[in-house]
Amino acid sequence: MSRRARRLGRGVALVGAGMSKFGAFADKTSRDLFVDAFNAMTKTVDKGVDTEDIEALYVGNYSSDLFEGQGHIAPIMADWVGLVPKPATRVEDACASSGVAIREGILAIASGLYDTVLVGGTEKMTNLPTEQVTDTLASASDAVYEGACGFTFPGLYAAMATAYMAKYGASVEHFMKVGIKNHNNGALNPKAQFNRSIKDLMNARIEKAKQKGEPVPYWRDELEFLKDPRANPVVAWPMRLFDCSPITDGAACILLVAEDLAGDFSDNPIYIIGTGQGSDHALNERKDLTSILASRTAAKQAYEMAGVKPEDIQIAEVHDCFTIAELMAIEDLGFFKPGEAFKATERGLTARDGAKPINTSGGLKSKGHPVGASGVGQVVEIWHQMRGEAGPRQVPGKDIRLALTHNVGATGGTCVVHIYQRR
Amino acid sequence: MSRRARRLGRGVALVGAGMSKFGAFADKTSRDLFVDAFNAMTKTVDKGVDTEDIEALYVGNYSSDLFEGQGHIAPIMADWVGLVPKPATRVEDACASSGVAIREGILAIASGLYDTVLVGGTEKMTNLPTEQVTDTLASASDAVYEGACGFTFPGLYAAMATAYMAKYGASVEHFMKVGIKNHNNGALNPKAQFNRSIKDLMNARIEKAKQKGEPVPYWRDELEFLKDPRANPVVAWPMRLFDCSPITDGAACILLVAEDLAGDFSDNPIYIIGTGQGSDHALNERKDLTSILASRTAAKQAYEMAGVKPEDIQIAEVHDCFTIAELMAIEDLGFFKPGEAFKATERGLTARDGAKPINTSGGLKSKGHPVGASGVGQVVEIWHQMRGEAGPRQVPGKDIRLALTHNVGATGGTCVVHIYQRR
Repeated sequence: MSRRARRLGRGVALVGAGMSKFGAFADKTSRDLFVDAFNAMTKTVDKGVDTEDIEALYVGNYSSDLFEGQGHIAPIMADWVGLVPKPATRVEDACASSGVAIREGILAIASGLYDTVLVGGTEKMTNLPTEQVTDTLASASDAVYEGACGFTFPGLYAAMATAYMAKYGASVEHFMKVGIKNHNNGALNPKAQFNRSIKDLMNARIEKAKQKGEPVPYWRDELEFLKDPRANPVVAWPMRLFDCSPITDGAACILLVAEDLAGDFSDNPIYIIGTGQGSDHALNERKDLTSILASRTAAKQAYEMAGVKPEDIQIAEVHDCFTIAELMAIEDLGFFKPGEAFKATERGLTARDGAKPINTSGGLKSKGHPVGASGVGQVVEIWHQMRGEAGPRQVPGKDIRLALTHNVGATGGTCVVHIYQRR
Repeated sequence: MSRRARRLGRGVALVGAGMSKFGAFADKTSRDLFVDAFNAMTKTVDKGVDTEDIEALYVGNYSSDLFEGQGHIAPIMADWVGLVPKPATRVEDACASSGVAIREGILAIASGLYDTVLVGGTEKMTNLPTEQVTDTLASASDAVYEGACGFTFPGLYAAMATAYMAKYGASVEHFMKVGIKNHNNGALNPKAQFNRSIKDLMNARIEKAKQKGEPVPYWRDELEFLKDPRANPVVAWPMRLFDCSPITDGAACILLVAEDLAGDFSDNPIYIIGTGQGSDHALNERKDLTSILASRTAAKQAYEMAGVKPEDIQIAEVHDCFTIAELMAIEDLGFFKPGEAFKATERGLTARDGAKPINTSGGLKSKGHPVGASGVGQVVEIWHQMRGEAGPRQVPGKDIRLALTHNVGATGGTCVVHIYQRR
């Protein structure tokens, strides 16, 4: 069977992107958060958008079934933003749910069926007790061969982290430096769940101890703070609390349109020139835990379609559900050679003012990780950075023309990569 | 904003279709059932298909999260049929999940990205106690405004049934006649969960009573049997046990390819010439309960794209999760005028040898309703009937050139319609 070149029938542009505040909101449901994100998105469409302009909805969501007892959320989200009776489809691929929803939106426009598609993601996680959230997330691993053995996600990623340490000689400090960098970025993001740097957090605790007349902690810098098990307990060694993304409520929305209509909506549209998606075996079946086949597959497809190379990408939002995940991601994406990501991070290359800024939003680690919304949430950051509208966290000294998002489901059973261009 | 004609960039053909046995299988998981369906499908591809020919997977599933504690099933299904590292995406729209997955497969091929796509559906429901299944399904209604008030699906459809009775003068006997017809069809379908007619079932019970020396029931025909509350108890009036589709384990798979490649796979392909999808408000928000906006919307789109009219369709599989649902469906699809479906059914027009055969497979009522698999399951029947391979249940005296499937999510929050042509 001859294999055709993977080309889309029509180009697709991004003309709006917005998100709710990420955090813990006891008084909001996933539909409330989705409406917040939709309203934030519409404000970013330069020439405005009416609901009657929007032809279909794709919504990513991991499991409102388990989190809220609400299945079949797509028509509910459509109803709450005024889209009934238009088609509304939920896409689920664990934490890559809304990244894959973006891909479905792109394919739907490329098919010729629609000109304008709303893509969103929403997840409401904090209403369950933490242990139950952990179990709910664990059902995204292989419940028969991993979940049944007691594995939860910190444990699964800890297995990857120890494999990475053993193979390349990375230390726990290298993981911690990913967290420090991402919190430094998140501190500048008002929508982030934790918009404080780890240094600020450390200093606040020192100050509090002084005020209360308690013994003043010995921490002189963030690494001493993060190595203190009272400040940063081990969750599943070598992953400590500050290596793990938080439990988050949040939603995000973007508006996709056919390339030739972009000017009708936006003065400064972003073109999506590459999309790739891959799958992988469950973690227990893999020969090597230090790299994710789905990521490499998705990246290769996206680069080929876009006709660009990893070195051409100026900024990226990658899936840092755990600090080890960011290191694996930036190697699988070809930004750094295998075993080099932790050294590059240490040298500051992935910092906001580095050669290859990664997760300027704060990443899932600091911005928060409402799992089914995170993929679209990444695009919101790319949108602001590429248009030069990221405020105090705008990447300095770069005219950003090419960017990338990388969204992983579970331990990498799914990965989806998109490449963005400003012309 | 000018609205383009809804046309696909490329045509799509169906070159294989197969399903697992539908029923209750204590020793099988949703992945086992999916493998059964995949293997059954590959046998129907005239010229054969290798997994290397297949470029992507879309899988419909309502909630293996709640039924099996397994989220993120798409890459697992991909792995179990040998498709890793290809893209694998789960689509969820309640009981329309796999119908919508078909649509995503069509759009993906039409986009130019893929030539060959596997679309499946799978659901494993019988491992939970019946009450818990009822609750799990109820989460597909609006959990805030309907589920929280105690509504479950028999109750929601009972509300539609009473509205229909009040508006048009239908009686409970008319609902029963839908069930009798569908069981007559299912009796001829070896893959059906209940492959017995209601008359056979009635006679078996009479025979059993005689053998045991118990009082012999008074039933002289199926209607007397169905009106006897001991044989057919009320679930939510006017919906009795035999008005409700069963709880089912099952899976189904189809293979879609770009139209120009159909001949590489099949001697007798089926072309999908129309697709439509719509959404609707939750039931509590609707002004009229006797018709579903999503169904009418989806049907209109599909007819327009196909360039055919309701009267051109020769057979259809429609979503009879409850007997009232079939009556509403065949009105919303334009086969019969509003308020005429129950009369048409009474006159035998929808029987296998009638003018407009509906649910020759047995429908969800008799074939079974593994919710996330039902949409693709419908296509399996269309495939066999259109190719003249339906055996003893082949529609008599018709050269079937045009057929339709109609798949509903929940109380109609989603509906998806496809139209099939044999050339």
